[in-house]
Amino acid sequence: MIHMLNQIPEIIRQKKPLIHSITNYVTANDCANLLLACGASPIMADSSEDAVEITAQCDALNINMGLLNREKLFAMIASGKQANTLHLPVILDPVGVTASTFRRDAAEILMKKIHFTAIKGNASEIWYLAKGSKIFSGVDTAFEIDEQNISPVVQMMKEFAYLKNTIVIMTGQIDLVSDAEKTYLIRNGHSMMKSVTGAGCMLSALTAACLAVSHSALQACATSVCMMGIAGEIAAERMTPQDGNASYRNYLIDAMFHINNDLLKEKANYEIFC
Amino acid sequence: MIHMLNQIPEIIRQKKPLIHSITNYVTANDCANLLLACGASPIMADSSEDAVEITAQCDALNINMGLLNREKLFAMIASGKQANTLHLPVILDPVGVTASTFRRDAAEILMKKIHFTAIKGNASEIWYLAKGSKIFSGVDTAFEIDEQNISPVVQMMKEFAYLKNTIVIMTGQIDLVSDAEKTYLIRNGHSMMKSVTGAGCMLSALTAACLAVSHSALQACATSVCMMGIAGEIAAERMTPQDGNASYRNYLIDAMFHINNDLLKEKANYEIFC
Amino acid sequence: MIHMLNQIPEIIRQKKPLIHSITNYVTANDCANLLLACGASPIMADSSEDAVEITAQCDALNINMGLLNREKLFAMIASGKQANTLHLPVILDPVGVTASTFRRDAAEILMKKIHFTAIKGNASEIWYLAKGSKIFSGVDTAFEIDEQNISPVVQMMKEFAYLKNTIVIMTGQIDLVSDAEKTYLIRNGHSMMKSVTGAGCMLSALTAACLAVSHSALQACATSVCMMGIAGEIAAERMTPQDGNASYRNYLIDAMFHINNDLLKEKANYEIFC
Repeated sequence: MIHMLNQIPEIIRQKKPLIHSITNYVTANDCANLLLACGASPIMADSSEDAVEITAQCDALNINMGLLNREKLFAMIASGKQANTLHLPVILDPVGVTASTFRRDAAEILMKKIHFTAIKGNASEIWYLAKGSKIFSGVDTAFEIDEQNISPVVQMMKEFAYLKNTIVIMTGQIDLVSDAEKTYLIRNGHSMMKSVTGAGCMLSALTAACLAVSHSALQACATSVCMMGIAGEIAAERMTPQDGNASYRNYLIDAMFHINNDLLKEKANYEIFC
Repeated sequence: MIHMLNQIPEIIRQKKPLIHSITNYVTANDCANLLLACGASPIMADSSEDAVEITAQCDALNINMGLLNREKLFAMIASGKQANTLHLPVILDPVGVTASTFRRDAAEILMKKIHFTAIKGNASEIWYLAKGSKIFSGVDTAFEIDEQNISPVVQMMKEFAYLKNTIVIMTGQIDLVSDAEKTYLIRNGHSMMKSVTGAGCMLSALTAACLAVSHSALQACATSVCMMGIAGEIAAERMTPQDGNASYRNYLIDAMFHINNDLLKEKANYEIFC
Repeated sequence: MIHMLNQIPEIIRQKKPLIHSITNYVTANDCANLLLACGASPIMADSSEDAVEITAQCDALNINMGLLNREKLFAMIASGKQANTLHLPVILDPVGVTASTFRRDAAEILMKKIHFTAIKGNASEIWYLAKGSKIFSGVDTAFEIDEQNISPVVQMMKEFAYLKNTIVIMTGQIDLVSDAEKTYLIRNGHSMMKSVTGAGCMLSALTAACLAVSHSALQACATSVCMMGIAGEIAAERMTPQDGNASYRNYLIDAMFHINNDLLKEKANYEIFC
């Protein structure tokens, strides 16, 4: 299994999977360059007119709810169904699902109509999808996973993974990747990643690429989280005193451009939680 | 007052205001990273389905007319009204208002339906909003503020600020920030800023963040213009002979990442014009 | 003629042509910054409400089919007709034309309604537009021009250029630029350009700027391809071992910022094929 994890970076570079993203315009460019950096090929189409036909030619579908509108939602549903029919992996990134009724309704419809291979969000987003309510009533405090509160969170993730027959990825200070039975705790990454718009969107795109080339969805998701975190660590090492989040973004994508099996093996920092 | 100006950078970093931008896809990524650089949190939603609900959870609203269409205009009007109801600051960036009838009509509708805390444009755009005509009939020469023509321009800005009960920001070689009574002349900035798409859009986003944390709208706007100009100066100092406008863009956002009260106090270059 | 080619970079910087792009949100920011880098001015408007009026104020129109939808297609048709009426150069970049029926139909409609000064694509895209079929039935292998297969490809390009009364630009390992009679073989460029999203979109935008200031459309197109390739070579020379495709993208735009007549004369690597 560890062996398998370590092989994914070079399998992506060999197979060059074509990844269809239906995503938001804030981070689309970074997602496309991140996919190219890891060796995959990006394609984007978000209109009802051609999204489905394009999905059919791809190796995985990445659905990102940022800047959602009705038109894009229709394309997402149709493309997601197409991906399910063709047994292609599909990932959902429920960006902003806690922020509006429209996005909550959209997430509900998407999860009802489409079987997602993986669902990726931060703690608030995953909690919302799993429980239908905010973590804390009243104030929407940003919830952070730490060593103390990890057990009930893992339990919730496993139940949600079971219910939806999916892999659940929850990002935070510690990242968690879980199916109904097994959970990876991943301690890669760097705090600068929060200062860059689209770090989460890039992770979803990368996860689609990992899913496209792997037989184990759980391992693909865990690998993706490790790879992104490692890129974040390498990027942080390059920072000079004058650099800020713009340079960090470039270093992050640059780092992904160089990740290979050896680097993953050397730097992946995870444990399996039972 | 000078004291107040100097405190804004660190108040933004403490309060982390959530800024809703309804903006254009050319510069949305840079605006989001600039907001993160100054310590604010960006959120973007531009569809009628959820823009209003998202505005209600934010600390300020940034309306940018670049790449306008009817759908976005509806979202802007609804979100702007919501912001007014909740007494949140709202800024208008009338990108391209001199370029088409649709954008002129849109600006007129927006200014009629929404009270803007601030309106930011270059000389041509502000002149157009204030006077309903181009600065020069015939050729649309780019008008530049300089020491010679400053008096009538300030007078026009004060009248426009009075009429709309707003703060008017006019960018150019010298930047002007005015309410009906008092005008700041700001001499920060660098000519390279014109070689980067979105420098103006980033200023509007930053101004929304300054407005969100300040009791004085005039001071917030003046501070924002100083901060952006200082970032432009710091970015210019980093340029190597091989660097061009792409690196400059990164250095600009990087510089904002490091701006604090001391740097603002040291480098702000303004005077008050009566 | 060679003399003419070499003058285009500085003519763009003098005339600062205003280029209207109707394009996709993945690469719009890079296209805008690339246009600024070469000395042109970018403007983008993609809604039926104002695209036509904005085209009328510009020096060239760049139509890019990435992320196409019906709304944008209407704006493209109307703006393209306007450009034809005003005798402004118009370029078509048929992004993804091989990927969906909608895009194929769109390209057909666009080519029927609008006279394009130039059409730019990779080998698969140009083949599709010229022949109405994929290069290889079955698998859509990426076709690459090399010394062996160049003759029939040039023949196809000349026929297509004759039929549409246009300049055909085919990018690949070798770039080809052809009208009905004469073909430029251009050997500038670098393999890293494939690792950056939008290198093709940037070339189309640049070509619109070259067309806007040149009397010879063929020379303008050949110059644009040389300029972009030279920028790609200069960018590659700046790469450090830690750099990847994100830094390369910045270096590419930075390099364009410095291209002048002398650099073009020194580095342009082309021959004329009969």
